[in-house]
Amino acid sequence: MQSLRPFELLAEDPTGARLGRMSTGHGTFSTPVFMPVGTKAAVKGLSTEEVRETGARIILANTYHLYLRPGVEVIKEAGGLHRFMNWSGPILTDSGGFQVFSLKGLNRIDEEGVTFSSHLDGTRCRLTPESAVEIQEALGSDIIMCLDECLPDGATREETEKSTALTGRWAARSKAARREDKALLFGIVQGGMYTDLRVRSALEMVETGFDGYAIGGLSVGESKDVMTEMTRAVTEVLPRESARYLMGVGTPADLVRSVEAGVDMFDCVMPTRNARNGMLFTKHGKLVIKNSRYERDMEPLDPECGCYTCSHYSRSYLRHLFMSREMLGARLNSIHNLFYYASLMESIRENIKARTFGRFKSAFLSGPMAGD
Amino acid sequence: MQSLRPFELLAEDPTGARLGRMSTGHGTFSTPVFMPVGTKAAVKGLSTEEVRETGARIILANTYHLYLRPGVEVIKEAGGLHRFMNWSGPILTDSGGFQVFSLKGLNRIDEEGVTFSSHLDGTRCRLTPESAVEIQEALGSDIIMCLDECLPDGATREETEKSTALTGRWAARSKAARREDKALLFGIVQGGMYTDLRVRSALEMVETGFDGYAIGGLSVGESKDVMTEMTRAVTEVLPRESARYLMGVGTPADLVRSVEAGVDMFDCVMPTRNARNGMLFTKHGKLVIKNSRYERDMEPLDPECGCYTCSHYSRSYLRHLFMSREMLGARLNSIHNLFYYASLMESIRENIKARTFGRFKSAFLSGPMAGD
Repeated sequence: MQSLRPFELLAEDPTGARLGRMSTGHGTFSTPVFMPVGTKAAVKGLSTEEVRETGARIILANTYHLYLRPGVEVIKEAGGLHRFMNWSGPILTDSGGFQVFSLKGLNRIDEEGVTFSSHLDGTRCRLTPESAVEIQEALGSDIIMCLDECLPDGATREETEKSTALTGRWAARSKAARREDKALLFGIVQGGMYTDLRVRSALEMVETGFDGYAIGGLSVGESKDVMTEMTRAVTEVLPRESARYLMGVGTPADLVRSVEAGVDMFDCVMPTRNARNGMLFTKHGKLVIKNSRYERDMEPLDPECGCYTCSHYSRSYLRHLFMSREMLGARLNSIHNLFYYASLMESIRENIKARTFGRFKSAFLSGPMAGD
Repeated sequence: MQSLRPFELLAEDPTGARLGRMSTGHGTFSTPVFMPVGTKAAVKGLSTEEVRETGARIILANTYHLYLRPGVEVIKEAGGLHRFMNWSGPILTDSGGFQVFSLKGLNRIDEEGVTFSSHLDGTRCRLTPESAVEIQEALGSDIIMCLDECLPDGATREETEKSTALTGRWAARSKAARREDKALLFGIVQGGMYTDLRVRSALEMVETGFDGYAIGGLSVGESKDVMTEMTRAVTEVLPRESARYLMGVGTPADLVRSVEAGVDMFDCVMPTRNARNGMLFTKHGKLVIKNSRYERDMEPLDPECGCYTCSHYSRSYLRHLFMSREMLGARLNSIHNLFYYASLMESIRENIKARTFGRFKSAFLSGPMAGD
């Protein structure tokens, strides 16, 4: 265990939004933070220098995918994930649980762990709370996640209760499985769409004690109100002095709402996946680049944006690349969307610091990006 | 017409290899030169800054593709191709002839021009020597190519003679069609695999008079010996003081052999296309990155290479990206291969300058990259 608390709470806005700083084995970052997703040890299409230039300071990589390919031994031999992928900043790795439960290769789940088939070649694989920690430690991750069971939206109360209890026992085993103290370990709060189960799960995680607390199993189809309600139910019982990470969320409006609900960390494929599909985030709303109105539009995506893409290329050129299926388009779009997300988080932090987050939030949620 | 000769012959090696400097409306470049291919106004996957960092100083773009998409009017509105694609250096555009004749959309060829169907939507299009010049001038190209007829390998002498004569008449019309004097205009020597027809075509082009001379219709399936024989037949009758451009060539060994045959300029999709397919050029020979021997190979592609890819990434990581179909792999591989080509041209120029090209060539053609 690290001797000092990894998370420092620097300020709280009257709304409940928090400004903080997280320290890891590969440097610090300010919160609230958004983490771009580099599933297979690469943020799709981007160099790590470009990722950093967008303003991102921590990235997420996927234990499930890296475990299957290239395999843990390869990354160990490379000297760890940071060296393998040429990223010197902090890396958070998920446990693999979400992929095991969502990629349809699931064979069996028991008290001990989970058996699944590789989506690559069907090989039967086994993941336990202990092996998930071991793998993430071997990858050299800075923030490692406990293995949890992920239930689909619509699970019954009984199913949810049973599953959440298992996630709690797995979390305790994850903590006991740690061999090194370099990485931070986060527990994951589950509990489905049941407020009392969410609270019970959160209290259980706090009882076990982790370096930070994630909220899993949200943004799976529930309404925005339910998502916020579940988030708030959890953050209200989590310790003030620990970081909270809302997994897989979300849209810009989701981020603003969830910051108000006391969340410090986020990850989502949305900015990069949407970029590849030609959907760009701007201060003036979403922009679908394939639209013919942009054919001769020589303005940048967002005239007020300072990203590399907006500094060098027109909507007309980006539309041309998209229509021509040129991969440079996916890359330039990804740079823009990640810059948008990083800038949004920076604005959020500045407003929390200035104690103006409430006003910022109201303006944002009545603006062109409110609809999601 | 420009008042000064665009090409300055700086040195000739006893072998016949030439060192020169070409001046264009967007700067100068040293020859022999290799031009990366940016078919659709993008070198696939790369930013123009990256292209420049590989050592490339001039790129090629494709009139046929840009004419169909995004269309000349869009690029004109953007202020020309340079601004559209954010490349401030010289651009050479081909005439579109090669694509018309190779993309299977050809409908009819007559004295006036060529009718073809767009490979995008089947629209019937018409290209004449005059319109090819007009389009390239509108794109703002620095070096524009005459429309020529391209014959497949295996054409009879009679077919070749007839076609080459047409290319000659089209070339004269191309010259007469020029409206601006900013761009340089290159004639294209054809003549198939018939030495006397090659010579006749070259003399005809010289008689008409161009800013430079291209050699077309080679590297279409003929043997390396025939290619060199045809190249030499042409360069021997072309004026010493004009640049010669061998179109669509080639492998590293092709470049070395053709420089000896008096060629100054080259373009080819090979370095970038092979990169996307995981084939890398190194001083020690070709490297196929998907090979399992590279799974745990933590060396760079070429330990002596100074490119961005070799400075930051291992074979192991590049193999992982290739196996995972991550587009970052195509990009990093392309950077490496273009750097290899640019470095090869730089070595060639240095050896011509030092009058050691003959030795360099012999060593190269008995080395690991000789086999192509």
